[in-house]
Amino acid sequence: MSDQLEQLRQRLARFASERDWDQFHSPKNLSMALIAEAAELVEHFQWLSEQESKNLPTDKQQEVAMELADILIFLIRIADKLQVDLTETAWEKIKINESRYPVDKVRGSAKRASEY
Amino acid sequence: MSDQLEQLRQRLARFASERDWDQFHSPKNLSMALIAEAAELVEHFQWLSEQESKNLPTDKQQEVAMELADILIFLIRIADKLQVDLTETAWEKIKINESRYPVDKVRGSAKRASEY
Amino acid sequence: MSDQLEQLRQRLARFASERDWDQFHSPKNLSMALIAEAAELVEHFQWLSEQESKNLPTDKQQEVAMELADILIFLIRIADKLQVDLTETAWEKIKINESRYPVDKVRGSAKRASEY
Amino acid sequence: MSDQLEQLRQRLARFASERDWDQFHSPKNLSMALIAEAAELVEHFQWLSEQESKNLPTDKQQEVAMELADILIFLIRIADKLQVDLTETAWEKIKINESRYPVDKVRGSAKRASEY
Repeated sequence: MSDQLEQLRQRLARFASERDWDQFHSPKNLSMALIAEAAELVEHFQWLSEQESKNLPTDKQQEVAMELADILIFLIRIADKLQVDLTETAWEKIKINESRYPVDKVRGSAKRASEY
Repeated sequence: MSDQLEQLRQRLARFASERDWDQFHSPKNLSMALIAEAAELVEHFQWLSEQESKNLPTDKQQEVAMELADILIFLIRIADKLQVDLTETAWEKIKINESRYPVDKVRGSAKRASEY
Repeated sequence: MSDQLEQLRQRLARFASERDWDQFHSPKNLSMALIAEAAELVEHFQWLSEQESKNLPTDKQQEVAMELADILIFLIRIADKLQVDLTETAWEKIKINESRYPVDKVRGSAKRASEY
Repeated sequence: MSDQLEQLRQRLARFASERDWDQFHSPKNLSMALIAEAAELVEHFQWLSEQESKNLPTDKQQEVAMELADILIFLIRIADKLQVDLTETAWEKIKINESRYPVDKVRGSAKRASEY
């Protein structure tokens, strides 16, 4: 796996065990924590236009960066508990996406694969 | 930033531009796509017990791995559009979490920081 | 439509227009606000066991009730903007669920319709 | 409580017990099912502009209506299990919102209460 992600994985595993938090870290619970963080990200953008979301003021940019960090943290934790290699699986999924969304078929269109 | 994540970032940027999809990839929209994937993960666990979530049958394990990949993919995309270094920001957040949740104060308890 | 829901619909429409908030209340934005509230509900339960979630302390019960109210509020708003009759459509969906999940086929099992 | 919502509550309670599904319907699990439905709604809008979300083609409109029904269904179920009167609590929350967002202070602005 990726060096940086592996270091984060270890640090987060230690963070949880130091606090005796593994008891709470079932994949079920971690999926809930992850979506809660994803929602904090959504909240930052819900009343902004798409254009505004591309031009965030500095303080907002910093808050949003922290939400992305939270999501990555829980993603690494749940992948750890499920023994999933995140980057390897991402490359697999990109291959699948390539065949689901061939350039000549989907260029410029945002429909779902099943809607073509 | 992390080598593997940087390679994924570039591949995903190319994937989107080949398909002329950058027009849809505002941070606002990407935050929506990300939470939609986080929810597909939650769906796999909603009727399972915590124990069952730790012992997934092989086919379910593979589906869940793909959902984690989807989440990582959109996380990398939105970080790219917002010019956020994911791993660097994660390390910053871990430092913040260390002071919010000191071991001696929170050991064995899952309350939120504000509830201590 | 339901009397109570209709009264809430009107009150919420007035609430928004008094504050000149209709400009922010596109269905797209409202769907984001709704999921953000759904996530606040999830957050209350993420570290609790299923059993604990059935026996909430009084203060937690009150907070959770408020989250349910928030979800209903945004649900009524988005249904209003999309001109959807919530209760009528719910009855339609129950009929569909009856044929997707016949009692004799699904009794005691929590698989998705497509997994039978 | 509201007549229509009460009838739906009873119908949904019967739907679940006929299928011996109460065992799965802890508030924790129902909060997960609810957010999964909220995400299916978000998915319909993620690549659409706000303007497009106000002008849905007929088939899309029908799909979105069904998602709203799903959300209401799980909202009624979880309120039932938690013994929360949905409409009564909504009216309470509107009162709270009135004092958090006084017209003269917030008119035309979409900041969060804490950001004023």
